[in-house]
Formats: sequence, C-alpha cells, structure tokens
Amino acid sequence: MKKVNIVIIGGGTGTFTVIQGLKHHPQFSLTAIVTMTDSGGSAGRLRDEFGTLPVGDVRQCLVALSKEDEAGNILRELFNYRFPNTNSSLHGHNFGNIFLTALSNILGGEEQAIDAASKILNIKGRIIPVTTDNVDLVAKYDNGFILYGEKNIDEPYNNPKHDCNSRISRLWTQPDAKLNPHAENAIINADYIIMGPGDFYSSLMANIVINGMDKVISASKAKFIYIPNLVSKYGQTSNMKQSDYIYELVKYIGREPDYVLLNNAELEGDILAKYALENSFPIEDDLNSNNIIRLPLISLIEIMRTNDDSVKRSLLRHDSQKLGSAIIDITTK
Amino acid sequence: MKKVNIVIIGGGTGTFTVIQGLKHHPQFSLTAIVTMTDSGGSAGRLRDEFGTLPVGDVRQCLVALSKEDEAGNILRELFNYRFPNTNSSLHGHNFGNIFLTALSNILGGEEQAIDAASKILNIKGRIIPVTTDNVDLVAKYDNGFILYGEKNIDEPYNNPKHDCNSRISRLWTQPDAKLNPHAENAIINADYIIMGPGDFYSSLMANIVINGMDKVISASKAKFIYIPNLVSKYGQTSNMKQSDYIYELVKYIGREPDYVLLNNAELEGDILAKYALENSFPIEDDLNSNNIIRLPLISLIEIMRTNDDSVKRSLLRHDSQKLGSAIIDITTK
Repeated sequence: MKKVNIVIIGGGTGTFTVIQGLKHHPQFSLTAIVTMTDSGGSAGRLRDEFGTLPVGDVRQCLVALSKEDEAGNILRELFNYRFPNTNSSLHGHNFGNIFLTALSNILGGEEQAIDAASKILNIKGRIIPVTTDNVDLVAKYDNGFILYGEKNIDEPYNNPKHDCNSRISRLWTQPDAKLNPHAENAIINADYIIMGPGDFYSSLMANIVINGMDKVISASKAKFIYIPNLVSKYGQTSNMKQSDYIYELVKYIGREPDYVLLNNAELEGDILAKYALENSFPIEDDLNSNNIIRLPLISLIEIMRTNDDSVKRSLLRHDSQKLGSAIIDITTK
Repeated sequence: MKKVNIVIIGGGTGTFTVIQGLKHHPQFSLTAIVTMTDSGGSAGRLRDEFGTLPVGDVRQCLVALSKEDEAGNILRELFNYRFPNTNSSLHGHNFGNIFLTALSNILGGEEQAIDAASKILNIKGRIIPVTTDNVDLVAKYDNGFILYGEKNIDEPYNNPKHDCNSRISRLWTQPDAKLNPHAENAIINADYIIMGPGDFYSSLMANIVINGMDKVISASKAKFIYIPNLVSKYGQTSNMKQSDYIYELVKYIGREPDYVLLNNAELEGDILAKYALENSFPIEDDLNSNNIIRLPLISLIEIMRTNDDSVKRSLLRHDSQKLGSAIIDITTK
C-alpha cells in the first residue's frame, strides 16, 4: 500500500501533539519540518556555547516519533529529563539537548545528528530542520519596535519599553536562511501539509520566513491543513481573531488552507481565568468559509511535566487522538 | 544449548578488552562485575555533584557489550565522547557519564540506570556494580602511609610525601561496602571467573575488598582464570614479580587461580623505553606451577583515543581476539 505522505510544519508542543495523534496509523509516512531559531533555555545556552543549532524542537519531535516499547519509554523519559538547578555543572540542562549537541559535535552537523538520533531512537518518520543555517528570528511590530531572537519575541513583556498589544507587522530571519533541500523535497512529495497548532509567529511562521519556503508550499500539490490555536498569546497575537490568523497565514505563505481544523468544545471558565491572568484569551471564531471543520479537539487539561526552557507552556491542550481522528477523516474523504 | 556463564571481575580497559574478545561467541553468557570506587575525572565530578555512584567503568563495559550495528556504532562513539575543555558548561564531561547520571537521577539508583542503559544499548550480557554503596578506596602502604580515594591511589606520585616504591600492604573501603546480591548470584552461577588484566589494586582488588566477595569467589564452583598485567604500575606495584601478584591475589581472595593466562610475546624496546620514563617495567615471569598458560596475547600498540579521565592509559594492550581464543581453549578443555 502506498503510504500517505504527511508533512507537519512547526516545532514545539503543537507538533508533538499532532505526531502523537498520527504515529500509530501505519498508512501515514510522517515528516516533521521544524524551526531552528530557538534562542532561550537550555537549547539556547548550548547554541551559544557550541555554535550548534538549537535542538529543543527537534528533541520534542524525536520523543513524539519514538517507539513505545520498554527501551523507547526510558529514552523518552531521558530525552525530557532536565538536570536540577543545583550547583552542578549540568544545572538546568535538558538531557536530550545534550544528546543532540554531542552528536552534532561528533558528526559535524545538526542534520547528521538528527538522522543518527532517529536511528538510535528507532523513530517512525523523519525530522528535518527547516534550515541548517544558524540564524535568528527578528520581529517588527506595528509601532515600529523591533525585537531580536526567538526568546525575546516569545516573551516581549520582559521588555519594559515594548507595547504588548501591538502586532507583529513583519517577521524575518537575520541573516537570510537557505531552505534545507530535504525539507523542500518533503513538501514537494507531500500529500498533506499540516501547520499548527503552535505559537503562530515563533513556531509556525518561523518556518515560512526561511527563503523559498512560501513558494514551495504554494506550488505543492499537497492539501494544506491549518490547525488554529485555542488561545491568544500575549505580546504576539493579542486581539487577533481567527480570520486575522488566516489573513496573516495567507500573507506569509501566499496560499489559503484547504482545511481549517477548529476546536468547538467550550473552554472551561476556571482555566480561562488562569489564562486571563497571563493576558491570554480564547480566540474568537469569526470564520465562515466552507473549508472549516469544527470539532471538539481538546483534552483534559494537563500541566506539562517537563519544561526544557523558562518559557511557559500552555495548560490548554489539543487532544492528540481527537486531532488524529479528524486528520484521518480528511485524508479518507 | 546451555550457555557457559562467564563472570568478568574488574573495571576499566582490561575488562573492556576481555569482553570484546568474548562477545561474538554465542556459547557464552557474559556478566561484568565492576568497581564503583572511581573518584577522578568526569565520573568523579558527577559523583561529587549528584551524590551518585561513579559510572566510568560501567560505561566502558556498556560500550564493550553493545551491538555492532549502525545505531550501536553511533551510540558507542557517543558514549566515549568527551565535550571539549572549553568554557562551556559541559566542559570535559564524558557523554556516557552524563547519560548514566541522568538515568540514575530519573530511576532512583545506579543499578536501575545500568539495567535501563543495557536495554537501550541492547547489550549482549549483563553489567553489575559490585556494590551499590557509595564508598571510597583506601590504601595503606608498607611505610605506614595511607592514601584515600581511587584517584589518589592511581596517581600517588602527585603526593610529594609519598614513596612510590613502597607497596600497598592493605586495601579496604571506607565505609564498609555491602556486596551487591546480584553480583553474588552471578558468581555462584558462574562456570568461569575471569580477573584481569587491569590495575591490580584499584580495578581488581577494589572488587575483592567489598564485604564477602572473597568468600563468594572462594566458595564458587567456577574455574578461576587470572590474566596478569604486562607492566608494573608506578606507585602501585613497583618491583612486584608475577609471583608477588599471585601471592597478593591469594591473600585477598583466599583462593589460587585455576589458570593463569600469561603473555609470552616480547615487548618491543622502544615501547619499553617509553614505559621506563613513567617508571613502568615489564613484570618478571617467575611462575612455575603447571596452571600457567603462556601465549602471545598482545596486539599492535595503540593509544586510547578517548580518555575520560586525566589518568594515563596504557599503550601496551592485550589483544582481545587472542585473549578470547585462549579463554575459549580453556572452556573447551
């Protein structure tokens, strides 16, 4: 049976969730294309110290795609393990990041390291860095303010001069980054491209601003599935409605999504109150085209046990099995 | 076919070499019992910082027993990899030690970590720490001097007050260490016990001074094979002849070896000159009982590429294949 080629573009928790929902279905061949512009936490420190590319998003994808046998279970736990913040020389480092950094140093490149780690973890699928150039994200806001580096864009509230209600008017990398030809090939051969859920600018558009990525996605014969986020992110997407996201998506990629997979289960009040404390709010669903698929897509709320970085993680989560089922429905239409 | 149970007692390069010589022979079930008293280098630092047991010897055995497929080859390289001594937070750390420390922290014990790593590396055989107590080696010399910690015993010449020609009159651990019951079981069920090559006191006798180890070996029905070293170690075994080693061995264990597997290939002059500079000399073969098997057992001289610790490694090496063949001959007698 010819497999259905699915390319998941993103990085971070959202990509992890989508992979988890699809990995047990043998009809799919999964490829994750991930951002390489992380600049915070343990991955950022290793990046600074070794000159290697940041590997935090790669690590999460490796864990998501790893086998679920006994050895795989231990490796998964190991890859998510973070050394305690004590006086030790390893303080705060995530083991998976150390693993990938060592492999990069041995093999002479991050892509080789990812391929080797994929063999060791015996993963189902493939992980491709969107670029192998060492670049930083830069965001310009509609008030003229410019922030450099993914960490600063993720946490603009740490910058007292910045108005967190202003929107990102332009995102780019500095310097320009070359699209990884393996990523290009994967998109050309894809049957479906899935984008989201994930931080809209720093995880999703961070892939699109790599030189040529927009054209490759636009030219691809693959169906394009977009999975919007549940809540806004303070300082990145404040006050944006779902239609604003689609508008931005089309602006960056030059292509409308073929399907929008949107949660319609209600978010509970006490969780929303917690999010409101962080200035995050449910995103208003003002979409009305006929390519919108509305389904309950969220799961019981969990706090992420592992936390590589100092960046806060969402408490509201898409449910991997529900997402998986919805995607399977699309692919069998 | 019932397998031949071989227990290799030691730690370090010698044990690695014996395992390499036996691992490809499916008639053997291999168990390595290793010292847990290392106090130098990267393993020693992690031990100090995390309160975990030192894992350097375990790491070498894991590498020796790992599968030689593509993933195994990468893992082996990774386990031997040492981060460069730059300003990075990982400077000088051996990756394999970090791996085992993370596993120990996650699983709550070194023995669990070793079992988990054995599954991940898919090793052929078993590695058992001789004790799970966190203890240090102590050596008393015939001039009354006492040195604490394996690192200091290995490098007594760093202590200006110590006379490096004095011999170790007594070796013990501080505090007393309980023999790991898994080690005890392995010895009870062994068909052959192999000891050596390896640093006589800090790798071999370091196992014997664990409480009860001498009695268990003495009571075992297993044949006991001793593989002497090629050269003396300055400050540990200066001026000892092979008969002196056997005398010491019997003193500590209370049992004569059934076989002594002794190299009779000549050591070349220029290598001997290098060793002489470090006050290491070929050990005089003055043995004459009929359980001595003399064979050429050395290989081309190599410098160890990886070096976890600051401790110097031998240039003269036993050849794993030659050792393996000699042991096979003994087991098929």
